[in-house]
Parts: sequence; structure tokens; C-alpha cells
Amino acid sequence: MAADLPRASNEAPLFDRLCLLGVGLIGSSIARVAQARGDIARSIVAHAKTPATLERVRELGIADEVEADPAKAVQGADAVIFCIPVGAYAEVGAAVAPYLKPGAIVSDVGSTKGSVVRDLGPLMSKGVHLVPAHPMAGTEFSGPDAGFAELFQGRYCILTPLPGTDPAAVEKIAELWRRCGSMLEMLDPATHDKIVAIVSHLPHLIAFTICSTADDLAEETKEAVLKFAASGFRDFTRIAASDPTMWRDIFLNNREALLEMLARFTEDAHALGRAVRWGQADYIEDRIQRGRKIRRGLIERKQA
Amino acid sequence: MAADLPRASNEAPLFDRLCLLGVGLIGSSIARVAQARGDIARSIVAHAKTPATLERVRELGIADEVEADPAKAVQGADAVIFCIPVGAYAEVGAAVAPYLKPGAIVSDVGSTKGSVVRDLGPLMSKGVHLVPAHPMAGTEFSGPDAGFAELFQGRYCILTPLPGTDPAAVEKIAELWRRCGSMLEMLDPATHDKIVAIVSHLPHLIAFTICSTADDLAEETKEAVLKFAASGFRDFTRIAASDPTMWRDIFLNNREALLEMLARFTEDAHALGRAVRWGQADYIEDRIQRGRKIRRGLIERKQA
Repeated sequence: MAADLPRASNEAPLFDRLCLLGVGLIGSSIARVAQARGDIARSIVAHAKTPATLERVRELGIADEVEADPAKAVQGADAVIFCIPVGAYAEVGAAVAPYLKPGAIVSDVGSTKGSVVRDLGPLMSKGVHLVPAHPMAGTEFSGPDAGFAELFQGRYCILTPLPGTDPAAVEKIAELWRRCGSMLEMLDPATHDKIVAIVSHLPHLIAFTICSTADDLAEETKEAVLKFAASGFRDFTRIAASDPTMWRDIFLNNREALLEMLARFTEDAHALGRAVRWGQADYIEDRIQRGRKIRRGLIERKQA
Repeated sequence: MAADLPRASNEAPLFDRLCLLGVGLIGSSIARVAQARGDIARSIVAHAKTPATLERVRELGIADEVEADPAKAVQGADAVIFCIPVGAYAEVGAAVAPYLKPGAIVSDVGSTKGSVVRDLGPLMSKGVHLVPAHPMAGTEFSGPDAGFAELFQGRYCILTPLPGTDPAAVEKIAELWRRCGSMLEMLDPATHDKIVAIVSHLPHLIAFTICSTADDLAEETKEAVLKFAASGFRDFTRIAASDPTMWRDIFLNNREALLEMLARFTEDAHALGRAVRWGQADYIEDRIQRGRKIRRGLIERKQA
């Protein structure tokens, strides 16, 4: 790990006290990077909702302190990162807001960004800086054991600060993600939400749907589905294995963009189905070719 | 390779002369297994449509003979396997049928089986045995260089002979696939076609569609799609990279089952979209959970 994540020489830690609200796949990965590098925070306090997770984080030794009460966890922290499902931000935000240190930076790792501005923005008192972030990295696994220090390396992290946000606070969060190995991008929340709707949220909605469609098939065929799951279906089930609470919250908090992309997609699926019905070979081939084009673009960008 | 694909000791080759019509991913993988094991055929003759592929097969040295004319290729062969897109079976079948050796076994590797019975069945003279097969293995790559001898190991191969087919002929094709490392299953063509529609054809149709939906987005967003392709979308583009001609033919030759599954899927996608619109958290979570259930089934069956 030391070879992959070298400590930047002579760099002071970015933060004195970093508070992670939530220690799942993403939160525990941040904790692991911070621990491996040493130049992200002098100390890490981790909050988790369940005693079992708190205990597991203690066993793993990936935080300096664990704290069951989020309001206590944020006290004295110069940076607080929400690493919980986006649907819980409003409630946890209200619980912690009165205890934030003046000058504290509040950030997050959620997959929807308009909802963060909506849910956390009004809670921030003057002098507290909100810098929403979305590290575009993940696996289908969840929980504190699923994290690893290399998760963010070479992946994009999108920051969506509102205009007028303190540039020094934005730079500190940007530097945090650089030290995690990410490539930084800045977007406005609405553009972010539209992009992730097509590249991530809709693919997940589709994967969940096809798996439940298969589950609905008659008992005989269902068994065969499991038996003969070809590579196409296997990839869908891998996507569909992701955390249900997290994805429920993402869907509900990116409703407009997701429904727009779903509408475009189903129009296109119906058009392709119609071409199959009427034997329009050229149309079908053209659509397949366009899919390959996207793939080639990913390969050229080394994202494939 | 020898360690993975040991020659069955003292077994005589199954066939004297095995003819592969088409030497793409699947055809060239069969040739490689046969070459590695030695107990599948005494000699292999390979036919390909283009001079470039024929020359490449010659260079690779994976067949004993290469032959540009399919009618010549099948002459004297005791087994002929169609390894070309299913849309070309009728034409190539008509070209080769008069030259099939009496007693020859004709098989194939296509992803649709009703169409094989429809297209090849009427062409088979008395004494020629049709044993359609579908090895459920593949990658997103195509062509003679894409094949490898281990492709079929541990994967299902479905045989769909019609009632009354010579049991000895069926057993020979079954044994061919056993020697390729596959697990054998017998199904009627209609059941086969319905199962593959949900486990393979619909997932591919969906993957092609979402990639072309993304391609249709405005120039700015499209660039962002490529830049920020998260893991969800990346898996879809991998599926969508498959061979266009092959998939066009599969869709057109499994029309009824594919359209039925597409209809079921879009109903379910609309229902999930409606739940997102109306904030029905329980419904969303239930659908996500069902997707995970299918995934667990695959893991239990070691197909994940």
C-alpha cells in the first residue's frame, strides 16, 4: 500500500480532525487512504449508525475514534464528510449543524448533488463551507470491510460547490481527493445529476428491473434463468447486487433527471423492438454499431 | 493448455473429418480444443467467407485444411458444425446440403434454436442427422484470433435435437461438448429460445439501446458520458461491444421470445419509474432486493 499511496513528502496534514459520517464502502476507503498516507488528517473520528458497524470499525482500526452520536462526532472537526445514503442527509444534517465548528468544511460523497444543496445548504450557518463532492468509484460491495485504499485511484471525483463558496475550502476538498488518487472535475449540481443519471443511475435501474423481471418468470423458467445465466445477464446481476438503501435514496433524490433518461431509453428500446418485429436489419445494425462507438470512446479514454 | 484439456486416454477421435463452417470466436475455439486434445477429430477442415479470415486461420495453424467454398469444405466430413451468424444458415445450408456425406451429423453453435430447425431441417436428406447445439459461452471479442481452448470449460451447452433424431448422433455431439469441458443440457427449441431471450438476448438489446441513447445525447453531455462512465455504464458498453452482424441475426431469429421479454421488461421499468416519480420507497427497495436475490442464486450455483 505504501508504494501505491506514498505520503507526499513534507506536506502537513490537510485537516486536524476529519469526521466521517458513515463508514461504508466509501467512508472506510477514505479512512484507509488517510491512514496509509498520513497527510490527510491528524486524526479521524468515524460515526456509524449501528453499534455493529461501530464495533467493526474499532476492530479494523481504521479510525482514531468512533462515535455513536453524530452531533458529538462533528465537534471540533475542521472537515466533516457525509458518507451515508443521500436520503439521510437532511435528518443527520439537522442533528449535526448546531455543533459544527466555525470555519468547518462540510462535504459528502453522495451520487446526487442537487439534493445535497437542497438538504444541507439551508442548514449551514455563516462561516461553515459546503463543498459537495462525488467520487465516481465503487464496487457492488458495501460496509466497512468492503473499503480499500486504492478505490479512488485514477477515477474522477466531481465537485459541485455553489458560486460564491470560499475558494480555500473548495481547494482543500479538491486536494483531499487528489491525495486519494482521483482526477478532479467541477460541475454545477444540475449538470452533474443529468450526467450520472445516464452513466450510472439508469444502468442501475435497468439492472434491478431485468433481475426482477427474471424473478417474476414462472418457477420453471426462473430455475433455467439461474442455470443458464449467460455472460450478458451475469453482468446485470453484478450491478444489481449493490446496496438497496443507497440506491433507493439515489433514485428518489435524482428523480427528474432519472425519469428523463428512463423515458429516452424506453423510447429507444421500443424503437429497436419495433425494428426487430418488422425485420429492419439496417436499423438494428446501426443501433448496435452506435453502442460499439461508445465503447471505443471508453477504450480510447482508458475507462473501459 | 495440456494440463487444462488432457486428452482422454485411449479414446479414439470422435470424428474422422470435422468441418467447421465459420472460424470466429466459437469456431476457432472448437478448433483449438480439438487440436489441443487430439481425441475430437483426426482432421479439421475450416471454411470462412473472407480470404482474410481464411489466411489468418492458415497462419494460426488451427485447422488442417482451409477451404473457401463451403460445398467443398463439407465433402467427406462426418460432422459439420455451423459457426456462422444464424441469419446465414439458410443460404449456406442450401449450398452445402447436396454435398453432405450420407450419415453425416450436422450441428451448429447458434444462439437461437427454433430458427435452426426452421432453416436447416428441411434441407437435411434422409440419413443426415441434425443436432442443433448452443454452447453458452462467449466474450465480447470476435474473429479467429479471439478464440481460446478454455472458452467452453464449466459452461453449459444446450442440445435441442427434435424427437426421433438418431440417439447415436446426439450422443456424438454431446461427447464433443463434454470433451470441450461443457456441461450438457437437453431442451426443446422453443423453451431454449425463451430462456436465452431473458438471460442473454434482452440484456444485449438493452445494452445496445442504452449506449445508443447515450450517443444521442447532446454533444456536451455525450463527452461527459465518456468522461464519467461509472462502473454501471462500463459493464453495459462491454456487452454492447459484441459483434453487430451476429446480434442483428440473433434478434431477428428469436423475434417472438425477445419481444415478449422486452414487453415484460419495459412494463417493469415503467412501474419502477412510476414508483420513483411518486416516491414509493418500499416498492423501489423491494425491486432492488429481488435483483439481489437473483444474484445470490448465481453465486450459489457458482455462475456469478
